[in-house]
Amino acid sequence: MVSRIADSEMYAHLWGTEELRAVFDEKARLQAWLDILVALARAQSALGLIPPESADAIAEAAHVERLDLTYAAAETRSTSHSTLGLIHAFQRILPEPAREHVYLGVTVQDITDTWTALALRQVGSIVWRDLRIIESLVLDLAETYRTAAMVGRTHGQPGAPITFGFKAASWADELRRHLDRLRHGQDHWLVGQLAGSVGGLGFFGDHGVGLRRDFCARVALADPGISWLTSRDRLVEFAQVLATISGTLARIGGEVYELQRPEIGELREPAGMGAVSSITMPHKRNPERSEHLDTLARLVRANAGAMLEAMVQQHERDGRGWKTEWIALPEVCLLTGTALQFTIEILSGLEVDTERMAANLAIQSGFINSERVLAALTPHLGKHRAQELMHDALQPSGGAPRQVIAALAGAGIDGLELADPPGAAPPLAPPPAALTMVDEVVRRARAARAAESDTWPT
Amino acid sequence: MVSRIADSEMYAHLWGTEELRAVFDEKARLQAWLDILVALARAQSALGLIPPESADAIAEAAHVERLDLTYAAAETRSTSHSTLGLIHAFQRILPEPAREHVYLGVTVQDITDTWTALALRQVGSIVWRDLRIIESLVLDLAETYRTAAMVGRTHGQPGAPITFGFKAASWADELRRHLDRLRHGQDHWLVGQLAGSVGGLGFFGDHGVGLRRDFCARVALADPGISWLTSRDRLVEFAQVLATISGTLARIGGEVYELQRPEIGELREPAGMGAVSSITMPHKRNPERSEHLDTLARLVRANAGAMLEAMVQQHERDGRGWKTEWIALPEVCLLTGTALQFTIEILSGLEVDTERMAANLAIQSGFINSERVLAALTPHLGKHRAQELMHDALQPSGGAPRQVIAALAGAGIDGLELADPPGAAPPLAPPPAALTMVDEVVRRARAARAAESDTWPT
Amino acid sequence: MVSRIADSEMYAHLWGTEELRAVFDEKARLQAWLDILVALARAQSALGLIPPESADAIAEAAHVERLDLTYAAAETRSTSHSTLGLIHAFQRILPEPAREHVYLGVTVQDITDTWTALALRQVGSIVWRDLRIIESLVLDLAETYRTAAMVGRTHGQPGAPITFGFKAASWADELRRHLDRLRHGQDHWLVGQLAGSVGGLGFFGDHGVGLRRDFCARVALADPGISWLTSRDRLVEFAQVLATISGTLARIGGEVYELQRPEIGELREPAGMGAVSSITMPHKRNPERSEHLDTLARLVRANAGAMLEAMVQQHERDGRGWKTEWIALPEVCLLTGTALQFTIEILSGLEVDTERMAANLAIQSGFINSERVLAALTPHLGKHRAQELMHDALQPSGGAPRQVIAALAGAGIDGLELADPPGAAPPLAPPPAALTMVDEVVRRARAARAAESDTWPT
Amino acid sequence: MVSRIADSEMYAHLWGTEELRAVFDEKARLQAWLDILVALARAQSALGLIPPESADAIAEAAHVERLDLTYAAAETRSTSHSTLGLIHAFQRILPEPAREHVYLGVTVQDITDTWTALALRQVGSIVWRDLRIIESLVLDLAETYRTAAMVGRTHGQPGAPITFGFKAASWADELRRHLDRLRHGQDHWLVGQLAGSVGGLGFFGDHGVGLRRDFCARVALADPGISWLTSRDRLVEFAQVLATISGTLARIGGEVYELQRPEIGELREPAGMGAVSSITMPHKRNPERSEHLDTLARLVRANAGAMLEAMVQQHERDGRGWKTEWIALPEVCLLTGTALQFTIEILSGLEVDTERMAANLAIQSGFINSERVLAALTPHLGKHRAQELMHDALQPSGGAPRQVIAALAGAGIDGLELADPPGAAPPLAPPPAALTMVDEVVRRARAARAAESDTWPT
Repeated sequence: MVSRIADSEMYAHLWGTEELRAVFDEKARLQAWLDILVALARAQSALGLIPPESADAIAEAAHVERLDLTYAAAETRSTSHSTLGLIHAFQRILPEPAREHVYLGVTVQDITDTWTALALRQVGSIVWRDLRIIESLVLDLAETYRTAAMVGRTHGQPGAPITFGFKAASWADELRRHLDRLRHGQDHWLVGQLAGSVGGLGFFGDHGVGLRRDFCARVALADPGISWLTSRDRLVEFAQVLATISGTLARIGGEVYELQRPEIGELREPAGMGAVSSITMPHKRNPERSEHLDTLARLVRANAGAMLEAMVQQHERDGRGWKTEWIALPEVCLLTGTALQFTIEILSGLEVDTERMAANLAIQSGFINSERVLAALTPHLGKHRAQELMHDALQPSGGAPRQVIAALAGAGIDGLELADPPGAAPPLAPPPAALTMVDEVVRRARAARAAESDTWPT
Repeated sequence: MVSRIADSEMYAHLWGTEELRAVFDEKARLQAWLDILVALARAQSALGLIPPESADAIAEAAHVERLDLTYAAAETRSTSHSTLGLIHAFQRILPEPAREHVYLGVTVQDITDTWTALALRQVGSIVWRDLRIIESLVLDLAETYRTAAMVGRTHGQPGAPITFGFKAASWADELRRHLDRLRHGQDHWLVGQLAGSVGGLGFFGDHGVGLRRDFCARVALADPGISWLTSRDRLVEFAQVLATISGTLARIGGEVYELQRPEIGELREPAGMGAVSSITMPHKRNPERSEHLDTLARLVRANAGAMLEAMVQQHERDGRGWKTEWIALPEVCLLTGTALQFTIEILSGLEVDTERMAANLAIQSGFINSERVLAALTPHLGKHRAQELMHDALQPSGGAPRQVIAALAGAGIDGLELADPPGAAPPLAPPPAALTMVDEVVRRARAARAAESDTWPT
Repeated sequence: MVSRIADSEMYAHLWGTEELRAVFDEKARLQAWLDILVALARAQSALGLIPPESADAIAEAAHVERLDLTYAAAETRSTSHSTLGLIHAFQRILPEPAREHVYLGVTVQDITDTWTALALRQVGSIVWRDLRIIESLVLDLAETYRTAAMVGRTHGQPGAPITFGFKAASWADELRRHLDRLRHGQDHWLVGQLAGSVGGLGFFGDHGVGLRRDFCARVALADPGISWLTSRDRLVEFAQVLATISGTLARIGGEVYELQRPEIGELREPAGMGAVSSITMPHKRNPERSEHLDTLARLVRANAGAMLEAMVQQHERDGRGWKTEWIALPEVCLLTGTALQFTIEILSGLEVDTERMAANLAIQSGFINSERVLAALTPHLGKHRAQELMHDALQPSGGAPRQVIAALAGAGIDGLELADPPGAAPPLAPPPAALTMVDEVVRRARAARAAESDTWPT
Repeated sequence: MVSRIADSEMYAHLWGTEELRAVFDEKARLQAWLDILVALARAQSALGLIPPESADAIAEAAHVERLDLTYAAAETRSTSHSTLGLIHAFQRILPEPAREHVYLGVTVQDITDTWTALALRQVGSIVWRDLRIIESLVLDLAETYRTAAMVGRTHGQPGAPITFGFKAASWADELRRHLDRLRHGQDHWLVGQLAGSVGGLGFFGDHGVGLRRDFCARVALADPGISWLTSRDRLVEFAQVLATISGTLARIGGEVYELQRPEIGELREPAGMGAVSSITMPHKRNPERSEHLDTLARLVRANAGAMLEAMVQQHERDGRGWKTEWIALPEVCLLTGTALQFTIEILSGLEVDTERMAANLAIQSGFINSERVLAALTPHLGKHRAQELMHDALQPSGGAPRQVIAALAGAGIDGLELADPPGAAPPLAPPPAALTMVDEVVRRARAARAAESDTWPT
């Protein structure tokens, strides 16, 4: 029974990718847990804590498809213990004495936290890869539309001209910082957990720290140095980085959503996407994927918030925060990963209507260029006086710069000789600084890309 | 593939009840959608919009097990439309011309919002029922332990005596307000949706409002009077009420969790629950269900927060907030329902150790009774002066009231003749007002229970 | 030193109203606390717990301007106690023995919770009044623009026609539910607190409950029946209701913000508001107040979320949640109240450009009317087949209904005789159901308004 | 009028430090804005955009105490513009033509974002300093109490032994990661903003990028390379790092709060703090500062959540998210800074009761050592069989390891010859791995401290 729509047959594609769902799939997770138990047995065998034959037997049996999961689930419920059901099912297929040597001296979090780190390694590598794909697409947009003038808008209102490349460069700038965060945080995230009951590895006497070192090496995670059973900033930070990434993607999606309004018409999601937008209004073309980026970011935020609250844990284990992570952290990963894929799809075929951009600028003319007119008037009138006069002149019912000049004359400003009358300047040219900024962002990003690994951890 | 642990075979019982999972189960939801399509067809037939034969054919075919859900899912993905996949699969098993008469003139939200209201009717009835069971258990605790004296604690520190019945009465008082909220809100929540493309029911010409009236009657929901496509306070309010209920349950769970510390030892979850608490520390008895109430409340809050944000919707339909509801609202329902069941289990067998309660009071003696000693000294010394003297005397290394009296004498207070020397008062008697409050809460609740329906909507 | 920008001289008007700031002003709050102490002394005197002369002396001295607040603040810091600083300062101006009779047997929360209820009475009455003003303005809009056809938009895209009155009616519908919530919740909120140390009123022996009854009557609040020191759902519910109100106002603001885009140009904030929108772009007219409604709603949500978390309190007093309320609840009130005022300002002078609305409809023509064309074709082709054909025909580069008909003919559909050819229908008429819905909402609201008190509590 | 309790005379010390309040104080902020205007004028003068005399005049007049702030506030309100009121007040004291040369070509965010970065430089340096003080205190605790055995607790229940030094080392480990985050993030945060109207610096023609470079150098911030008007991940990240720091401090506070329960009695806030805990219960000693750390962390989280939401900004300026930052970011800083100070106070005088720790271990004996007994039995019985037998034997009413052995004998286990009978092992010795972990954490931290700057930015 699938009670979560996010896993439903009809809608799972909106809330997960196949690739990420495979990371968090129940069977895959249980297999990973078994693999961790194998690594543990191998490490214990290497230290002489269990016989090598037991480690071999454990390794041989550790295949999820061999377990009776119905029995494991029933035992999970009857013991109210998070891993004992699985262990009981595993023991059933283990020979003596391996049966007694599996899961020796460790506890739930040793398995689940180590698995989480392994899952984050997969998630991080997907996010790194997809972010770099998106960065590449965005850099291409920045270069292609470097000089494609369009209306810059503030508070929802047309302001001065920018270029679409400049807008894309702003996205690229933000994306690069996310890549930097992903790279920097990997040391915090990719660590194993071997803590035992309360973190002190008391079960293993003098062998505790050595066992952990070997165990971590076998699962290819760093040794944490100290148990982190209730020290959860590591996972919170990962969730936060993904939440900010989702925020950036929602920002990009928001631009497409708003600029796809036919009244504006400057951007459009790729044709073919959102195939049937409305079944009662056949003419509709909805920016459904762009819109969905916002939905995903909201839910990521909600779960990242739960992660942050879950940092405040009590004593040496605290199920209140820890079980919160069980739900919230995979959710953050699945939804962010979906957002990355949707963004790739949108940007790969983004329709950029430079003619409409130019037309929208032209419609505004006079108005849109008011910053430059102001600059031209400033030497003559002073900036603030010019601003006030223009503000009064440029009422919504008002007009173009020439009318401003007339207004100024009407206001008794005489001796105004504009060698380069403001309205005469080509109205649509983007500001040169915007182009320089595009170049700078692209240059930095391309240099960083050339110098970095295209796989993560880097 | 089940990527959400909340639906996993091993752990689904921690994040849902069978009963609630059946409400939100994919098949059940699709069947409910089909039933809504039937109600719509019947209503359209009654108005002459489609032939009665088509309504009959639609009703006859509307069984989810007859649909090819794999095809429906594929069509959902290829059309990027939320219901068209289902409709295509439905049309495949409908005869002509019913095929053209199904889902006539309506849109996704007509189906999904109406379904949501129907689901909330089921959820609300479960919550109402379980809340009343919990109230009953809590009222019994309040009566049984009306005079069972225990330490009242503030800021985690022992203060003056209360009784366990008083503590339970505080829970009962809060629970009753939730029942009041559930009853009051039902008019806001149990309404149908028939809005068409943009809310104006334009497809139906002059028949729109009449069609909605009949449609709502057929699904046994109120007629909303106006479309509520982007007016989502209804659903937000439901989520908020459930979130506050979860908060109350987490408060109850928190008491059990803390008072089950063996250093305190006043409450314990029922024996047999949490059967195996630790596999490395065999002596452990963890308050796992009480603890989990806190986890559930956190996740409910996170999702209720997403619901609140989703109120701010744009124009006549806004997928950003609406799709957020798809995930967040069922989650609120499933998790709150789980918390209710866990609470019933805990309270049904709660172990109340009145001897330990008395012993904890006795250990504190002198200290714990300081409020009463203060009251006794007040006529002699004035309240604030007495407080200061007692505060100085009652250092942690200090002692019992007699030492306070000595300290007072040592402080030069003479002529102090205590007819009823404070330390002589029976130290453990609970304050009479606490007992009166228990009686009042129980009386009000029992009266309300007698007067109200035991089913919801009331 | 004012470290919070919300109270800064320059910007306080954005984050509070004079009226609400006066409720939460430090001096006003301290005066209210003194008044509560007076009510307490009067009640204690009536029960013979303190002499009437002391009650008189306390009443006479209880004026905040008579207190040395610098001393009170210093004592607050040195005692680390929330009210003892104030009490010490108060005692300084009280004669013996009243000095010992002030604040007798009660604790911080008795004062602060009672004050909170009194503050909520003021806040609630402001919110009730302003909501009703807004409802009235919105009802007027609904009636005035009942038939003013405009584009209905879904997913940011033009859909079928609605009227601006219909949009306003949707707001009115939501506002009325808020009024219902405010009315219903008043019994939960307007209660006094007299609980003493741990809720049991132990200091007062047999007098506790009677004292509370009299005390509550004197402060004109209901008697709660039982102490609610850690039962905080009352305050959470108030915060939630205000948060949903803020959400509605943000939804209204969002419409103005987006429809004020000059590319759409259908609504505009009143002229004269947002006087200088940009000092480098003199032509700008920003929807600054509408925009700010969204900001306010976000911050209200954040604080309402903190309130919700603060429900889960421990034992008989829990400073962690309680002190959270100190910050979060006033913030919710101040910001919501500001949003109400801004909304009144916006709606009072809202510029509705019906010509532009009509023009935007006309631009879309053919497209916008696709729902009605579809309805007209449905009897001939079947609804779903018509939808598919229209969908293919109405590509963005496509055209008007006549082209649809041509497309249909081209698709081999013959025998199509449209008595009323779809494109010939007057394209801009709003759907009749929308008008009926406006009428229904207005009728219900006007009836409710006539029957209800215009002051709160009702 | 101070409507926010956080700035009230009585309670400001709970919600801010003098040092941080001085950063966000209105006058200080306005002075910083003036200083930024001076830097701008100097940079513009250096490029020949304004005469040097104007820059000199601007610099000379730029003193907040010379401005008429009442006038500035009135102008702020009448213009509805965030900085124009200040500029008008500034112009009043500027000579011609400097009056026209101030604030030339820039907009609000140029001033406020640059100021924010400057404020974050101050805040970051305070946080860095205080975090390192706390780390030092915690390292001292880890070393001092390296071998001080105490009960490790999971799910609120006593488990196996740890040491208090081990608990402190877990805190230290977490604190060090925060220092790493602070160091790494500085490049993201300490950047100036010079963007003009829409980010393209159009006012300045070809001079834009050069002007920004010089301006940033003058305010000692990095040049961002591209405008970041709506690219707010920088500030969100800062808020997130502070929120996780607050979470760590709340975790530390939570330990003190719970372990200060007299029933446990292992830790206590410094004597003298929380001087008067209760005025009706004179014996109380409340962990008020520890408790408050949790309150602060909640409010920080709420505001950090608002910051995260505010990332999703529209077009080239979006007041909805940006104005949210105005409130939320300073709040995060002020509250986190307060938490740091409280933590320093608590840890500086933390009372660690090692005798009580030992006694609590002894009370548990038999139970608490169950992990080690289990380890000793494992070679004889197998781990899981031993666990089951011990679990049955160690009922709450059960007993010590010897009884376990008896139970095992009773269960028919014969041939059990324990060379080192489990109950004979010294029961309270902490596990050696715990001590090694303490050493490792201390070693790493001391090495990092020796290698790093004690000021920030590093």
